[in-house]
Amino acid sequence: MTKIVIVGGVAGGASAAARARRLSEDAEIIMLERGPFVSFANCGLPYHIGGDIKDRSKLLLQTPESFLARFNVDVRVMNEVVSINRADKTVTIKNLIDASEYNESYDFLLLSPGAAPFIPAIAGIDNPLTYSLRNIPDMDRIIQTIQTNKPKHATVVGGGFIGLEMMEAFHQLGIETTLIEMADQVMTPVDKEMAGFAHAEIKQRGIDLRLGVALESVEFIPEEDNTGKLALTLNNGDTLSTELLIMSIGVRPETKLAQEAGLQLGELGGIYTDSSMQTSDPAIFAVGDAIEDTDFVTGKSGFVPLAGPANRQGRMAADNMLGRSETYQGTQGTSIVKIFDLAVASVGKNEKVLKREGIAYEKVYVHTASHAGYYPGAEIVSLKMLFSPETGKILGAQAAGKDGVDKRIDVLAVAQRAGMTVEQLQHLELTYAPPYGSAKDVINQAAFVANNILKGDATPIHFNEIDNLTEDQILLDVRNPGELENVGFIEGAINIPVDQLRGRMNELPKDKEIVIYCQVGLRGNVAYRQLVNNGFKARNLIGGYRTYKFAQA
Amino acid sequence: MTKIVIVGGVAGGASAAARARRLSEDAEIIMLERGPFVSFANCGLPYHIGGDIKDRSKLLLQTPESFLARFNVDVRVMNEVVSINRADKTVTIKNLIDASEYNESYDFLLLSPGAAPFIPAIAGIDNPLTYSLRNIPDMDRIIQTIQTNKPKHATVVGGGFIGLEMMEAFHQLGIETTLIEMADQVMTPVDKEMAGFAHAEIKQRGIDLRLGVALESVEFIPEEDNTGKLALTLNNGDTLSTELLIMSIGVRPETKLAQEAGLQLGELGGIYTDSSMQTSDPAIFAVGDAIEDTDFVTGKSGFVPLAGPANRQGRMAADNMLGRSETYQGTQGTSIVKIFDLAVASVGKNEKVLKREGIAYEKVYVHTASHAGYYPGAEIVSLKMLFSPETGKILGAQAAGKDGVDKRIDVLAVAQRAGMTVEQLQHLELTYAPPYGSAKDVINQAAFVANNILKGDATPIHFNEIDNLTEDQILLDVRNPGELENVGFIEGAINIPVDQLRGRMNELPKDKEIVIYCQVGLRGNVAYRQLVNNGFKARNLIGGYRTYKFAQA
Repeated sequence: MTKIVIVGGVAGGASAAARARRLSEDAEIIMLERGPFVSFANCGLPYHIGGDIKDRSKLLLQTPESFLARFNVDVRVMNEVVSINRADKTVTIKNLIDASEYNESYDFLLLSPGAAPFIPAIAGIDNPLTYSLRNIPDMDRIIQTIQTNKPKHATVVGGGFIGLEMMEAFHQLGIETTLIEMADQVMTPVDKEMAGFAHAEIKQRGIDLRLGVALESVEFIPEEDNTGKLALTLNNGDTLSTELLIMSIGVRPETKLAQEAGLQLGELGGIYTDSSMQTSDPAIFAVGDAIEDTDFVTGKSGFVPLAGPANRQGRMAADNMLGRSETYQGTQGTSIVKIFDLAVASVGKNEKVLKREGIAYEKVYVHTASHAGYYPGAEIVSLKMLFSPETGKILGAQAAGKDGVDKRIDVLAVAQRAGMTVEQLQHLELTYAPPYGSAKDVINQAAFVANNILKGDATPIHFNEIDNLTEDQILLDVRNPGELENVGFIEGAINIPVDQLRGRMNELPKDKEIVIYCQVGLRGNVAYRQLVNNGFKARNLIGGYRTYKFAQA
Repeated sequence: MTKIVIVGGVAGGASAAARARRLSEDAEIIMLERGPFVSFANCGLPYHIGGDIKDRSKLLLQTPESFLARFNVDVRVMNEVVSINRADKTVTIKNLIDASEYNESYDFLLLSPGAAPFIPAIAGIDNPLTYSLRNIPDMDRIIQTIQTNKPKHATVVGGGFIGLEMMEAFHQLGIETTLIEMADQVMTPVDKEMAGFAHAEIKQRGIDLRLGVALESVEFIPEEDNTGKLALTLNNGDTLSTELLIMSIGVRPETKLAQEAGLQLGELGGIYTDSSMQTSDPAIFAVGDAIEDTDFVTGKSGFVPLAGPANRQGRMAADNMLGRSETYQGTQGTSIVKIFDLAVASVGKNEKVLKREGIAYEKVYVHTASHAGYYPGAEIVSLKMLFSPETGKILGAQAAGKDGVDKRIDVLAVAQRAGMTVEQLQHLELTYAPPYGSAKDVINQAAFVANNILKGDATPIHFNEIDNLTEDQILLDVRNPGELENVGFIEGAINIPVDQLRGRMNELPKDKEIVIYCQVGLRGNVAYRQLVNNGFKARNLIGGYRTYKFAQA
């Protein structure tokens, strides 16, 4: 009989417990959770605050009782493991209700402690109106404050997943909201020009978005009715009065237990595991946000605090504790966030990281309708795809739009995991009927553009090179004059609509490089081919004016 | 200078013309179309009839003028190629406006004639109220008849893509509709039990659905006001009065030109091409609905009259006519249809075909929320996945549901094309946030079930075996009593809810095989593992009661 003790009763821990029981009826399985709840929907917390999820009980997916009934798992909430005694294979547990301590032995121990919100040491940050959001009690406290204090203004610090979701929740509750982000963009998994779509959406909703500034100090000013205000000072000298402050700048893996027990940590300070989820102690496994994952693209260690990997790792750890040999095959970091009507998603490595790691890449941008443009409801999917110029393999992808973003990143996540090249992507056969897609899907189109570059059929220029043209380059806008008027244009461009180009080529010099752009890059490519096949030197702005414009948003 | 003549100006032909020009400025490109329109949105026709696409001009994606301006292609509508003179590399063309004939020479000829609706020789079928739908003039005639005659009842014969879309169009216009299908299911790309979801949706909308019957004869009964009625007689003796009849039982490749020119046809009677889209005459290429494609799974010839392959083949044929060497890599037949709020989609081979071809397969069904169940708007995705028990590779997949169906079939279409196994599918990392997916996506779950079967962790039983249990088997329903009452149950089952099973195992015999089922198969698996790990013989109904029930719809 195997005795398995699990530390942490949410994603990874709960998955492991259920899987272990399915594999073995006679294993003894104890799940220890220091909080009052297990297996709750932590990704749903902001949506209950904002009111999308009306019923709080929907967030409680399992209870200790339901776990016992279905899986015969001994779930102990409000029980915190305070130390691991590896020599005698026991853990010391503190009952948080009566403060008593006791020991429990294990054959295998699974660590699934998660990651905690990181709160920097800012003067005055410890006050009754500042919260972070990790679990049900955090959520309850925030809701309570909103209901009691009826704040008119809230501030969110940190533009990651939780920060953006909390911003939307506040907006939905009619609370004026400021979002403060130290970087020059929200959503660091995507590159800045793709975050531009998010910035535009956020500003358009009336959020006070402040990029490139940090919170420096907080002063709590109590008021007579037991509420109060916070005076925030930013590192650019700005001040701000707010009534509720959410700190969501990121999370740190919970490694204290592992560290004190002498388990090996990884380079980045997370718990080290091998690909079977085993730590440096063969009797101890670890999963989820507290461990370092191996990155699928680079093979290096990284932190990817996401639910999908945690759940699959938990299942796999249970397999391996019970004698199987499953291996975890790296993390791509596939993720998505809803920002009002917009979805922003990504997979694999972004350009910032590829540059930093010195990995050679080429990139394309396409902006294409989510389904046939002539059928109602089509929205533009803006997609960036990064690929290896040597192997053609997909290094990463990012997308933004109001429809069909999840689907396109999922398609590329599968293709990347399968090791497909952009050559192969051209041949993908995706579902098509007018309400769902296009005969040439966004992905096919991105693949066509990528292959044109790889085969030398296109010479790309990118949005960030456009403002630095030399005297030997001239800028040619091939859109219709009406478009220039309506959506704007790049200073200094001459305008010859693509459909007039064949008859007006004589207006262009052959000794300069013609830098062509259109709205999204398609007509630009047609013009490029015309010019090059007629002996001109040319380049086409990949992703067109749309990429250029949103990069500045 | 290469001279390219293209026969047919829609999907494949138009793609080829545009690509050819992008590759070569000096090629002479002539596109001949016997109809009045080129490059129209044929997939949009039913949606304009039904009113979803309000503006007819949206269906006209390009005109001869726009093709000339942008691509310098000489487009000649109402010009029909009546013969190919291979010896002197010319085609004879009839100008359908003045009936004159002339010849045009070619270096390369591209055949993209498409496929024509097949109208069987039914007595009386040639009447003023019977139509098929292939192009803009067909659509205009149907709309004209609806506007003039104001029919109260319409009949659609054939439950494929066009038939289902026309059914929905009529329903949307408030016209009572009968749908007649000779097979025992609509949407032959999916298996009958998956078509059950479509049948339920169709009936629920009040459509008079008649499966397993054929139209035998039609009688046109003129009325005084220049309208009229049709008296339909079916092969089961039923009669039916209708005011508009759409024949949509399928299409046949247009091979007359090719055949008369002595080009090789394939086994099934379509135009033969090799993987470069070249016919048996090296100067003649062919693409689209008129040719036989190579099936991605079986390697055999097949007809897949869909827009995606046609477009990509056209592009590729242009490449190859202009000296490149691209190869077409087989057709998976990925497709989707909207049936009211439901989407039904598939990729690869279905079970019927695998059986017929003698290909070994195993299958799983899962019914899982399109996104986190606790977030509003989640709908059940019902997925069937067929895979090889030897290699684990994906043979085919089918899905039905009101949200996220296209995405799941796209994911499997990519995985299939990449040659991934169901083992690898477990590791897929797909976008997850509550509005878009689940930490364990539908696809991960299907992969888990498939792997449980492959590893011997699950012994499946399928819905079609349930009604033929022997005396050595007993049927166990592990749902809660309320569910049996509300959604129904299978006759003869005993009921022990899964959460009580551990305490009530003694009620079950060890010498019989326990056939377990729940609603979708998940709890059934928990019960199965309990029983088997306690020494019982058992099987679990894959896909649960939901699969069983919809198979009868």
